[in-house]
Amino acid sequence: MSTGTLYLVPAPLDFGCEEQAPLQDALPLGTLQKAAGITHWICENAKSARAYLKRIDAVVPLAAPLQLQQIQELPREVHKKGDHAGQFDARPLLAAALEGHAVGLLSEAGMPAVADPGSSVARAAHDLGISVVPLTGPVSLLLALAASGLNGQNFAFVGYLPQDADARTQRIRELETLALRTGQTQLFIETPYRNATLRQALTSTLQHNTRLAVARGLTLDSADVQSRTVKAWRSAPAPTDDRLPAVFAIGR
Amino acid sequence: MSTGTLYLVPAPLDFGCEEQAPLQDALPLGTLQKAAGITHWICENAKSARAYLKRIDAVVPLAAPLQLQQIQELPREVHKKGDHAGQFDARPLLAAALEGHAVGLLSEAGMPAVADPGSSVARAAHDLGISVVPLTGPVSLLLALAASGLNGQNFAFVGYLPQDADARTQRIRELETLALRTGQTQLFIETPYRNATLRQALTSTLQHNTRLAVARGLTLDSADVQSRTVKAWRSAPAPTDDRLPAVFAIGR
Repeated sequence: MSTGTLYLVPAPLDFGCEEQAPLQDALPLGTLQKAAGITHWICENAKSARAYLKRIDAVVPLAAPLQLQQIQELPREVHKKGDHAGQFDARPLLAAALEGHAVGLLSEAGMPAVADPGSSVARAAHDLGISVVPLTGPVSLLLALAASGLNGQNFAFVGYLPQDADARTQRIRELETLALRTGQTQLFIETPYRNATLRQALTSTLQHNTRLAVARGLTLDSADVQSRTVKAWRSAPAPTDDRLPAVFAIGR
Repeated sequence: MSTGTLYLVPAPLDFGCEEQAPLQDALPLGTLQKAAGITHWICENAKSARAYLKRIDAVVPLAAPLQLQQIQELPREVHKKGDHAGQFDARPLLAAALEGHAVGLLSEAGMPAVADPGSSVARAAHDLGISVVPLTGPVSLLLALAASGLNGQNFAFVGYLPQDADARTQRIRELETLALRTGQTQLFIETPYRNATLRQALTSTLQHNTRLAVARGLTLDSADVQSRTVKAWRSAPAPTDDRLPAVFAIGR
């Protein structure tokens, strides 16, 4: 009996959105076929994993019915503290892979382990000698970067900015200094209900000539990417729907 | 007559490889359908753009035959100096978009404007009020990061390392210090024929406990991602085919 494989299975970016995009708009048939053959899963949330599997089944029939799929959730400590901050050991989650099964790793939206939990599972797989195969799908950060017109040959993703207003202002200044000095585009995200607050903090803190890009609702019909200098942002109309998932990028 | 749209069209990652992957393994049908409808292109290289269009045509028939497609190449100065280093003005390339046409931006492999030329075209589109829509496809950097087991909540892509041995050693130390101090995973790439040299420089320069991941031939059948401590790399066998496109990542 040979060791199985850990597949990193991307999910659509419409999680939590009113609007759903057809699955094949942003997921390759190859990814859906591979996912449909998997019967063992590690995910952020079992309910959304089942909802996604149901959508896959409508395109490529699943190898096993939903109620027979083995679905394990990542513990809450990983969601909260991150994959490598605590003492979390993901190896027990991979028992099925050691027995020869293909195991899928899923996050709520986009690529697992990128701006989302899951890297502890990939690391545990490497430690156990299990092959790790990433499948192609949408990654909001990279779609946003490509569409921003900012430097894509040197960039960083730094997660969330602080919620406290003073700490946020300081962090924005720090990231701007880095971006202007080195040319490294700085990407970050925010929970949708704080998008407007962050945009206002950015346009009031950043320098006139710094470029700010905001990409919202990527892969949806309502997708919208705006990129201009901070000076131009100050006189631009506010977006009509500020609750879409957004990616922010600053650079020179 | 309304303004057209600039679509960022991802290409497969098998450019320059002996092995070709089926197009639908890593490209969503939605991307191929959108691309098949486009008749005006801006690309790195017209010959490879035509070869890719021919592959698309076999899945979704093109709206116009190959010989009627309007294909413009990015000037060599952009390939060499980067998009924003010189005085290059991409706006004239977008004349067709101003006339209402959909225009596609293509690079040789993966996502245009990410680790590849093209961001000057996206920027020019924003400046001209042309919508910029990124389509989903494979991005080797992100597939590598997800599969590496390294921190995906804070990461940077820094392009190529210096070719000079001393400068490369210094840069490796600098990136390692940053990665260990901040937890920010550092990603970089190399032209395939220098993969072995870079891997040797990394394993001899980095500290014992630093983690190094090398992802090769992503999306191909021969894809292979290895991730372990530098100490473990020193006793690991060398890869059998060292000429596959590779992404390198270091972190803690």
